Amino acid sequence: MAEQDRQAEQYTVGVDFGSESGRAVIVRLSDGEAMAEAVTPYRHGVMDHSLPDGTRLGREWALQHPQDYLDVFQQAVPQALKASGVSPEQVVGVGIDFTACTVLPTTAEGVPLCFLPEYAGRPHAWVKLWKHHAAQPQADRINRLAEERGESWLPRYGGKISSEWLFAKALQLLEEDPDTYAHAERFIEAADWVVWQLTGVETRNACTVGYKAMYQDGHFPPPEYFSALNPAFADVVQTRLQGGVGEALAPLGDRAGGLTDEAAAWTGLNPGTAVAVANVDAHVTAPAAGVTGPGQLVLIMGTSTCHVLVGENLAEVPGMCGVVEGGIVPGEYGYEAGQSGVGDIFAWLVKNMVPPEYHERAKAEGISLHALLEREAAKQAPGEHGLVALDWWNGNRSVLVDAGLSGMIVGMTLATRAPDLYRALIEATAYGTRVIVENFESSGVPVRELVIAGGLKKNKMLMQIYADVTGRPLNVLDAEQGPALGSAMHAAVAAGVYPDIAAAAEHMSRFQAHAYQPIAANVATYDKLYAEYLTLHDYFGRGLNDVMKRLKAVAGEAVQGVPPLNEEVTA
Amino acid sequence: MAEQDRQAEQYTVGVDFGSESGRAVIVRLSDGEAMAEAVTPYRHGVMDHSLPDGTRLGREWALQHPQDYLDVFQQAVPQALKASGVSPEQVVGVGIDFTACTVLPTTAEGVPLCFLPEYAGRPHAWVKLWKHHAAQPQADRINRLAEERGESWLPRYGGKISSEWLFAKALQLLEEDPDTYAHAERFIEAADWVVWQLTGVETRNACTVGYKAMYQDGHFPPPEYFSALNPAFADVVQTRLQGGVGEALAPLGDRAGGLTDEAAAWTGLNPGTAVAVANVDAHVTAPAAGVTGPGQLVLIMGTSTCHVLVGENLAEVPGMCGVVEGGIVPGEYGYEAGQSGVGDIFAWLVKNMVPPEYHERAKAEGISLHALLEREAAKQAPGEHGLVALDWWNGNRSVLVDAGLSGMIVGMTLATRAPDLYRALIEATAYGTRVIVENFESSGVPVRELVIAGGLKKNKMLMQIYADVTGRPLNVLDAEQGPALGSAMHAAVAAGVYPDIAAAAEHMSRFQAHAYQPIAANVATYDKLYAEYLTLHDYFGRGLNDVMKRLKAVAGEAVQGVPPLNEEVTA
Repeated sequence: MAEQDRQAEQYTVGVDFGSESGRAVIVRLSDGEAMAEAVTPYRHGVMDHSLPDGTRLGREWALQHPQDYLDVFQQAVPQALKASGVSPEQVVGVGIDFTACTVLPTTAEGVPLCFLPEYAGRPHAWVKLWKHHAAQPQADRINRLAEERGESWLPRYGGKISSEWLFAKALQLLEEDPDTYAHAERFIEAADWVVWQLTGVETRNACTVGYKAMYQDGHFPPPEYFSALNPAFADVVQTRLQGGVGEALAPLGDRAGGLTDEAAAWTGLNPGTAVAVANVDAHVTAPAAGVTGPGQLVLIMGTSTCHVLVGENLAEVPGMCGVVEGGIVPGEYGYEAGQSGVGDIFAWLVKNMVPPEYHERAKAEGISLHALLEREAAKQAPGEHGLVALDWWNGNRSVLVDAGLSGMIVGMTLATRAPDLYRALIEATAYGTRVIVENFESSGVPVRELVIAGGLKKNKMLMQIYADVTGRPLNVLDAEQGPALGSAMHAAVAAGVYPDIAAAAEHMSRFQAHAYQPIAANVATYDKLYAEYLTLHDYFGRGLNDVMKRLKAVAGEAVQGVPPLNEEVTA
Repeated sequence: MAEQDRQAEQYTVGVDFGSESGRAVIVRLSDGEAMAEAVTPYRHGVMDHSLPDGTRLGREWALQHPQDYLDVFQQAVPQALKASGVSPEQVVGVGIDFTACTVLPTTAEGVPLCFLPEYAGRPHAWVKLWKHHAAQPQADRINRLAEERGESWLPRYGGKISSEWLFAKALQLLEEDPDTYAHAERFIEAADWVVWQLTGVETRNACTVGYKAMYQDGHFPPPEYFSALNPAFADVVQTRLQGGVGEALAPLGDRAGGLTDEAAAWTGLNPGTAVAVANVDAHVTAPAAGVTGPGQLVLIMGTSTCHVLVGENLAEVPGMCGVVEGGIVPGEYGYEAGQSGVGDIFAWLVKNMVPPEYHERAKAEGISLHALLEREAAKQAPGEHGLVALDWWNGNRSVLVDAGLSGMIVGMTLATRAPDLYRALIEATAYGTRVIVENFESSGVPVRELVIAGGLKKNKMLMQIYADVTGRPLNVLDAEQGPALGSAMHAAVAAGVYPDIAAAAEHMSRFQAHAYQPIAANVATYDKLYAEYLTLHDYFGRGLNDVMKRLKAVAGEAVQGVPPLNEEVTA
């Protein structure tokens, strides 16, 4: 491109806040090309043992330090900008996406309580990261009460909300540290908090309140519901969520505000540059991969899989994580589903169930053990290994919403080897996705094709298996940083360069269309095997045999109770 | 012991013919002490690829060379005798036990057809070892016809006879090599053949005809039955089995004859020394471990487990391998059951599912991987790993009699490790034994305690688990060579030193009584887990969900048909 054209181009910055680091990408608005990127690791990472001052944390806690987020604006953004050679004048917007529900208490001015010396030693004053799981007792009560009261929002979340979500974390704060709760004038998603820091404007994005804060049909649950959980919790919405913004929610792609002088100095961008309403990392990936309308199920495949899907109508789909109006694209229903264990099940196998001979071969060939197992497993025809597994090593989110389930494999013989199990586990997760697809369809939300994002998209055998098992073509995201691209696209909309996200996607999204097509013979075999999976899925997962839960109960008793055998070994 | 007492002692020789070698043990009759032993490996081992002249064998064939057995008499016996310092005058008897059904065609004089130059190149002229599995089509027809005709003997074998047994092998001989069949004047168990070589006397021991040749209620199946299988097979019993002995069967412990001059020269023993009727290795282990009456289930635990049990009454117990009058102890009913995969399942796990870290630790500590896994697994309380498995990696013999079944494990999480699976597989085989125990009891054959023999008795964790799972005390065989000891005891009876095997066992058997006692707290937990096993056993094994068979069918089609995926690897 000539220097002249380059000068004529416009750019936005997409900033993706992950669990361990924040990443800034400079994106060209004409075609979505990533010009440069930079990463800032969080100095405090995930705090799951202690606070910076040494205060010990309980089990299942996971906190973060808000300054680490600001560091990303002060380091990654200017670094990426510099590396891109793009001038600040050419940058018309900033968009961010965040993990969720990642949430913190602040003052009415947006100062994190943990920044105040009198609260720095209190765990509840810090950011609770999405994977903070210590609010399970509160989540259990939230679910039980909602069920008893027949709360209309409950079915929108597959009948069960997670301990990771906003009100569970807020209730834990109230009940375990009422003083900090009393001084918290806001309890806000980190996504919205960083936008506030950039713009000086407090907003609440429509995505997180819908998926993480039970906002449905234009309102939160009523004060009577919260009061029944705990009388002191009755006004949580009015006092902690709506304090600065009232009932207004900010649609995705809207302009939250312009960069303050201070934030402009952090980032090296110009004051007043448009900042988009915050988004969630999974949901923002959809437009990055070209999805802004119905029929395309986006799978963000990593240690777990998050499925997002746009639907024209509201349907209550069993076992979903949530359905939110405007949750992915303004004006449309955004559906989210999930598989709790995907890449981490394969990693479990590779780490724990593969004998030395494969390690040695991989080493000798200079490839990863994953790659060796993939190559060996890819030599097989579908069904050749004779195995079917249930992919519930980490429980099941969609469609059974049951953390008490566990893994199962059937079909082993003395000839079963590691590549057989590797392939069987991949297939099991594909069957799990097919269950989700069929649930959407039978609930009236069509799924025409799959769109794959996330690290696992590089595994070609896995991709082909997903196409064959679901009988649908796969589009594959063709960008290294899907969420940052999606954020940059929302920034382009917020800046007014494109009228809406669909128009932005038309120019900027990056994907290989139909990179994998189902192979008819494989589809036929997998139809048979999926029928087996489904029978076992219902047998173990729908109460015909609750052996998985009883085994967990026995295991729980065993760890507490009976002294172990401790015979000396002679064999 | 003073030299004088030593001179006054009497001894017998027990010779145990295994799959790879024969072993001779000199045993003292006063107390069963093994004075010395020697082993002769079979020069030709298991012939499963070709004959000595290079003739290729088909799949599933397994043959042996009869000369290898004679070598044992000429090498192991005199070596053991010499090593013991016992004089030939003090040796009053010889007893042998053999694998079964291991069977060969001979002339009327007992000359193996394979010794005749004109037959040496014919596979069917050689010894078919027990694990020759090429007669499966014949076994299938034998079972189908017996079922159609409602043959009364079929239920005595759990409703299905094995391709390993005598008539399946004989029918294969007839149909695949009618000329060799025509010249076979005998089709005889190798057990009886070696006794014939020692004594010049042809006998048919009551044990093998009962367990391997469908002899029940005083007769073989009728000629019409055999004729319906194949008209040329009608007289197989009269011409090939009863040729030299008529209808006479030889009871266990009887004197088959005395050593011939030639056999005396081979062994270094005196001519005329009593030779006992032949026995089968598993069954002869019972009296060696002190079992000559009802209520004690003997488990010979190795790669698979063979269960033998004496009962006072005839009962048709589902899924047994067989019930034979006089099959273990003359005058009593001898029951046999089996688990097709035990030690070989543990070996499968150790070889194929254990990651390098455990290999390295075992090496660093200088212990076997089995020992390391046993030690780690023994630290757990029952149920702590949260797993239940079905032990059907090699199919299921008792009580389901179904080779089409396969393995299953349920309860895995991301925290599951190799020692968990190791313990779960051991427990699964213990549950499998409990199913057998409960089947005996519900059929009216009591099981008071278990008696353990075979290599796995050294694994103390496994032993305690068997006691806890079955809720019964374990006696453990306290002799290195159980079968040879049992053969030496039968030799003592044949020589008239003891009036019967019970009297011999009183003096000579070697076992630790109640070496393991069930621990009440563990029994309570295992009762719960066994209930889970049983539900899954019936679900997968009794037709509620035949997924295991369908998976095998799909695997069979896959191997023949569809071309495999062969994508290049990039992950």
